[in-house]
Amino acid sequence: MNNGALGIFDSGVGGLTVVRAVQELLPAENIVYLGDTARVPYGSKSPETIRRFSDEDARYLLGKNVKAIIVACNTATAHALPFLQQQYRIPVIGVIEAGVEAVLADPLAQRIGIIATRGTIDSHAYQHALALRRTGMMIVPQATPLLVPLVEENWLEHPATQQILATYLEPILAKHIDTLLLACTHYPLLVPTLQKMLGESVRIVDSATTCAEHVKKQLGQLEMLADPNQVGTLSIGLTDLSEQFEVLAKRFLHKTPPRIERVVL
Amino acid sequence: MNNGALGIFDSGVGGLTVVRAVQELLPAENIVYLGDTARVPYGSKSPETIRRFSDEDARYLLGKNVKAIIVACNTATAHALPFLQQQYRIPVIGVIEAGVEAVLADPLAQRIGIIATRGTIDSHAYQHALALRRTGMMIVPQATPLLVPLVEENWLEHPATQQILATYLEPILAKHIDTLLLACTHYPLLVPTLQKMLGESVRIVDSATTCAEHVKKQLGQLEMLADPNQVGTLSIGLTDLSEQFEVLAKRFLHKTPPRIERVVL
Repeated sequence: MNNGALGIFDSGVGGLTVVRAVQELLPAENIVYLGDTARVPYGSKSPETIRRFSDEDARYLLGKNVKAIIVACNTATAHALPFLQQQYRIPVIGVIEAGVEAVLADPLAQRIGIIATRGTIDSHAYQHALALRRTGMMIVPQATPLLVPLVEENWLEHPATQQILATYLEPILAKHIDTLLLACTHYPLLVPTLQKMLGESVRIVDSATTCAEHVKKQLGQLEMLADPNQVGTLSIGLTDLSEQFEVLAKRFLHKTPPRIERVVL
Repeated sequence: MNNGALGIFDSGVGGLTVVRAVQELLPAENIVYLGDTARVPYGSKSPETIRRFSDEDARYLLGKNVKAIIVACNTATAHALPFLQQQYRIPVIGVIEAGVEAVLADPLAQRIGIIATRGTIDSHAYQHALALRRTGMMIVPQATPLLVPLVEENWLEHPATQQILATYLEPILAKHIDTLLLACTHYPLLVPTLQKMLGESVRIVDSATTCAEHVKKQLGQLEMLADPNQVGTLSIGLTDLSEQFEVLAKRFLHKTPPRIERVVL
């Protein structure tokens, strides 16, 4: 048992979808969240820069004495996870492994579409992890860089969003996928729109919720879960504070966040 | 006469539209350009963070011994120009004054639409500067946060872009504007699409090209223009380098850029 806090970081507020999932599954865990809103987004930036930013995020959390770090950002996981795992002694858990496991939980999943930022797609992290685990799968990756800005603007139902999604999904649907993996923690908010466009026959797997189950399993194996009788706390730090981010934080968290602290890295 | 370099900075590569305009009008000037691509965009971030980033950008250029600094970013001009002008002894020139002068160059301009990032609109910098100079004008500001991502994706002609523009322009057109001010250095690339949607009766004023004229006037008055017999050089530094940024740099500059250097601030 370990009552230390879980450190969770993301490039911005999208990672709060992971916080919400962890709070639901592991309500006893104390969570320290860091969103690098001053430098968001990571998805369009270079691997070297993403590694540098992720390392600064991790160091901030280590300064808060966290027992483990969850990288709640697909782009950061794709480019920085092995580096962070080598660098630090505490467990560092990413979102990709969880997403891959969730895809493979269906033994019949064979034709997998992946939508993500350009950084995540270009890293080939998901393609590689999937190909290692099950042979003969067809993987259709698609960079969807405009979805994060659209979600941040809350244009979830706007006709332009549907048109952009239709453009992005066209090459994926042409391959008759059976599973669509949402490989970005911003995308869960698009699930209703996506499910309507894809039809019921395509299974949507979202890396945010599956990540919480993965964390529970990993911490359980390491005997690092918190005392189940306590009620976990949540503190949120952002590198840039604005009204817009507070509105978004509430939307991703599905409740009013605690007082948000401004953090200088 | 002063053959020192002009320092020009922007949050990313959009400011290269200003570089291009300055090179056309003042071909003898040496230019040192800095694009803060590691932290782009600025437009959605808080005034405090924008000022901090802008100050770091300016300090980098001062380290290159520039004779003057051009803030080729509307959001940075809106939130950081007075601060930078107080802080440093060399001339610091923004894009807003130039845009305002260009609007007022038409003595009949009375109904002015402004499109810009949320940061620029919320600063009220343009609204204030216009209201100071001509009484009785009607100003219709509209934050258009999705346009920078769309331009960066080069979706200039995509039906979704037209739909998004239509949504943004609707409240502006309802006010029967005679002038539309493009208050973001990314927007000049949208001029053909915008002119088609607005019709010929609405004048489009773009802050990038007008900025070059403003710089010429200011440096001329200060007797700081370069020897007109020399051929100016251009060096470009970006805080994050990626293929995507190189493609964009070429598009904004209308030619292949010189070798781009990666800069750590």
